[in-house]
Amino acid sequence: LSSSSTEIRRADVKATSAFEEDTAFARVDDRTFGATVTDRWNGLHGQPLGGYVLAVALQPLRAQMPYPDLLVSSAFFLRPVATGPVEIRTEVARVGQRTATGETRLFQGGKEALRSTATFTNLPEHENGGLEFGHPPLLPRPENSISLHTGDPLPSSSVANRLEYRVGETPGWRRGQPSGDPVSELWLRLTEGGGDDTLTVPFLVDAAAPAVMDIGATGSTTIELTIYVRSRPTPGWNACRASTRLVKDGYHEEDFELWTDHHRLVAQARQLAIVHMGSTL
Amino acid sequence: LSSSSTEIRRADVKATSAFEEDTAFARVDDRTFGATVTDRWNGLHGQPLGGYVLAVALQPLRAQMPYPDLLVSSAFFLRPVATGPVEIRTEVARVGQRTATGETRLFQGGKEALRSTATFTNLPEHENGGLEFGHPPLLPRPENSISLHTGDPLPSSSVANRLEYRVGETPGWRRGQPSGDPVSELWLRLTEGGGDDTLTVPFLVDAAAPAVMDIGATGSTTIELTIYVRSRPTPGWNACRASTRLVKDGYHEEDFELWTDHHRLVAQARQLAIVHMGSTL
Repeated sequence: LSSSSTEIRRADVKATSAFEEDTAFARVDDRTFGATVTDRWNGLHGQPLGGYVLAVALQPLRAQMPYPDLLVSSAFFLRPVATGPVEIRTEVARVGQRTATGETRLFQGGKEALRSTATFTNLPEHENGGLEFGHPPLLPRPENSISLHTGDPLPSSSVANRLEYRVGETPGWRRGQPSGDPVSELWLRLTEGGGDDTLTVPFLVDAAAPAVMDIGATGSTTIELTIYVRSRPTPGWNACRASTRLVKDGYHEEDFELWTDHHRLVAQARQLAIVHMGSTL
Repeated sequence: LSSSSTEIRRADVKATSAFEEDTAFARVDDRTFGATVTDRWNGLHGQPLGGYVLAVALQPLRAQMPYPDLLVSSAFFLRPVATGPVEIRTEVARVGQRTATGETRLFQGGKEALRSTATFTNLPEHENGGLEFGHPPLLPRPENSISLHTGDPLPSSSVANRLEYRVGETPGWRRGQPSGDPVSELWLRLTEGGGDDTLTVPFLVDAAAPAVMDIGATGSTTIELTIYVRSRPTPGWNACRASTRLVKDGYHEEDFELWTDHHRLVAQARQLAIVHMGSTL
């Protein structure tokens, strides 16, 4: 047997997907864990996507919960995270009959970079419809949609190897002509499986280009991201809608909805972020 | 001089409003504070409103921040809070050039009842418009709106003495005929001042009857509430919109927007809650 709990844990991991592999953790003690932020989930800015780092932080917290499904996560992004080792400290706040809540903090180089409080539950295996008052994105079927992987490559964005993006029409900002309307709808799919776990949701809801790209933004830095998981996700295509209502004082919010391709709402997410505008605005 | 820091702090408070008075706190040590949840802010269920308790918990955290304005709060409601004394423990997570983030935990009877992480900033004194893609509620002017204080009194709801509610038409659920559409728009005003502080926002966004009352719900228990403050509030009337998109597996989300009567968006809030349905649904 290895003398390193990290190695034991790594060897134990039967990762069935790149996502599971890259969010694995090693136990240091009851409340402390080690993990590695890999370079396979970088966004347009060439840095690990916040939603991926959040999933890394939530894994060891979930492992201490009596319920498998993420119901709510609110994450505060305190400092940028680079690829490399991180330390995660967890705390169980309350375990109830129906939900359990705890907190996870992710440190890099001794500094806290991310903090999330999260509630877990048991989501039903079999779906009941619920009372639905919203409507899914109005997209052509995935097979009739345009892949965003053609055209100019985005070499900084390694996540483009992990995800497929399809749209009804190419977004204005990708053609150098921002539409002026900060709303986007797209299909999103994990290329390497793992899409049936609620812990993929924090990653998916943060994986698309921000809607403010279409009003001339060059990027966005998340301050806080809240996610409500309303149904277990299903592997395959997700229909997504991103929208922003107000850009003001250097901040914008973004709403993000994730739907299965059978019109079931999987998640509602919202974030507040610092907007980076191009020189023309 | 009094030997009790609690008394000193109370005596120091120059409360200019009932809200300020009832969210005052006393220092126990650098990170621990005492406060009293009063019976003047009870909702329809006859218990203190969650948003009021949240404001009580945020006051001592704000006092340690270099910035006066709440920008983001995410609160998890772990246990019910009754009127009476509470203990509040705070922690500063990070102070940056633009924002500062910390955490506050509220205990009653030795048990943690509420936990919020929150970010503070300096919101501008003078308003710039920003880029607005949403629209304010479509309400008649307050002077042409109907007061909800006429008709059957709601004796359990002491908050009705602190707030005025006005609507374009009486909601279906108040007439015993839920409309079937979980959307409501209303005017809201603090009757006793204090409406120019961002810490009144957590209270205001949780002070209206939940939109699910109009699909037959008898009440709602908040699990998590996230608030983004986009502008400093102004004293006087606030135009509000509450809406729910999905009721499923016993949970509902509610979006709540708060606007000034001059069409400026003050806050975007969203909560996930357990829905209590009447016997007919």
